[in-house]
This record gives sequence, structure tokens and C-alpha cells, in this order.
Amino acid sequence: MTPQRVTLITLGVSDLAASKAFYNSMGWVETEQTDTVVFFQINGMVLGLFGLVPLAEDQGRPDATLGTGAMSLAQNFATEAEVDKAYAHALACGATALKAPEAVFWGGYSGYYADPDGHVWEVAYNPFWPLNDDGSLTLPDAD
Amino acid sequence: MTPQRVTLITLGVSDLAASKAFYNSMGWVETEQTDTVVFFQINGMVLGLFGLVPLAEDQGRPDATLGTGAMSLAQNFATEAEVDKAYAHALACGATALKAPEAVFWGGYSGYYADPDGHVWEVAYNPFWPLNDDGSLTLPDAD
Repeated sequence: MTPQRVTLITLGVSDLAASKAFYNSMGWVETEQTDTVVFFQINGMVLGLFGLVPLAEDQGRPDATLGTGAMSLAQNFATEAEVDKAYAHALACGATALKAPEAVFWGGYSGYYADPDGHVWEVAYNPFWPLNDDGSLTLPDAD
Repeated sequence: MTPQRVTLITLGVSDLAASKAFYNSMGWVETEQTDTVVFFQINGMVLGLFGLVPLAEDQGRPDATLGTGAMSLAQNFATEAEVDKAYAHALACGATALKAPEAVFWGGYSGYYADPDGHVWEVAYNPFWPLNDDGSLTLPDAD
């Protein structure tokens, strides 16, 4: 059985300094950094920035089409106003607008932007998923 | 300032039932499920499976190239033997081999496989990053 967990999310980036500067401007502070990688401590795991080419090579798919795929990383917030504020802040930091926050079919409120490499972030309010005090998320039906 | 956290990782999948069956065979158990989405509770956040097309539409990039991009999700383990076991188990569950676990330049031990949609998972042992008792990861230098 494979443990039901993730310990590291790695995003491939074309310009490590520029990408680090973007996340720093967003308010994130790195915990570890070398010439080739930047690690941010997040809730229960780590998010890393690593070069596009070495990431593809490390993954054993050096000829893979890089860029961004069918994936998004979401940040949930406690109110629609916080979503609007986070979205505006990201654009002010240089993020690319994909979809301004709006009421969505599943009963919440959600928008999307992209980081400098096109990695897709969602900002959302989900009335059915209250956040824990530390900002982490436990599904209401989880044991 | 944007909180330094992720609350939901969403992977776009071409066949929700097949993808759910893969993760179930890996040992993961869903907490919420509808006809269009499956949510797994993980450490501090949620991992969701959602259709490729509705994900692209929801992200506001319906014409985006789908597939997988410059990203990997990693599971860290406490020993090299556990990495080997997890890698073999994934292949037995139908994962596609990308790189068999091996000693890597940063001093650890790592391999990669892909899920049915090509989403890249890393299995790794990092002697510099001990796991917490609950399997979550706090960087040694994190406050």
C-alpha cells in the first residue's frame, strides 16, 4: 500500500531567480536555497522551484514537452472577499490573469491565475470546506 | 501577502473511473466522490481527480495543451528499501516506469513513475529531510 500523502511539489521554472522573485513578492519566504533549487515550507509538505531542463532530465523524460499541464494548485480562503484580494494581489505581483473570481457551478467562488512559467493557481472560497485554524484543509467527511 | 500554503492539488484525468481505480489499487481511499470528481484527503490538504476538459474550461484555458507539464508530486520515505517497494508497487498497479530508483546527485535515492494520465510521481529517500511521525515533511530549517 502506498501512503496517501504528498511530501514535495516541484514546479519546473525557466528562470529560477525570476520565479523566486515572483513568489517572494507574493509573500512567500524560502527555507532552503541553492544555485539550482528553492524550497518553500508549506502546510505539511514542501513546494520547490527547479529548472525546467534538469527537472525533465531528473524525471527521466528529457525530451518531454515542458510547460504546464492538466494540473492546478489551489489556495482556499475563508471568504469571497479574501479570494478577490488574493487574486488582485497576485496580478499586482505579475501573475497572468486566467479567470477573474466568480461564482461557480459547484456552489463556491473561484478564479485562476498563472505564475511566470504558466503554472496554474486557483484561488477559491468553498462554503462546504471550512479551513482549519492553521489554514490547512481536512475534508468534512475525512476520518 | 498570500498565505504560504496549498489546500488542493487537482489532476486532470481522461477517464475518471480508470484513474480512481488506479489510485484505489495503490491503496488510496477517496473521501468524497461525485460523477465528475474524486477527492482524496492527504496530509494537510486534498488531492482531486477531475476531467481534463472541464479542468481546462474551469481554468479559463479551454484551448490549452493538456497532458502533463513541468511538475512532479513526490512521496518521501524513510529508507531506500521503502522507495524500492513503493516503486515496484506502483508498477504492479499499472503505473508507467520513468526512472527506476537510484542514488542521485543531491545525496538521496529517487525514482519516477507516471499515473494513467502521465502525471509524474517521484518516490524518494532524502537523508537530509527526515519525515515527521505522521508522514508529513517539515524542512529542518523551517521555523
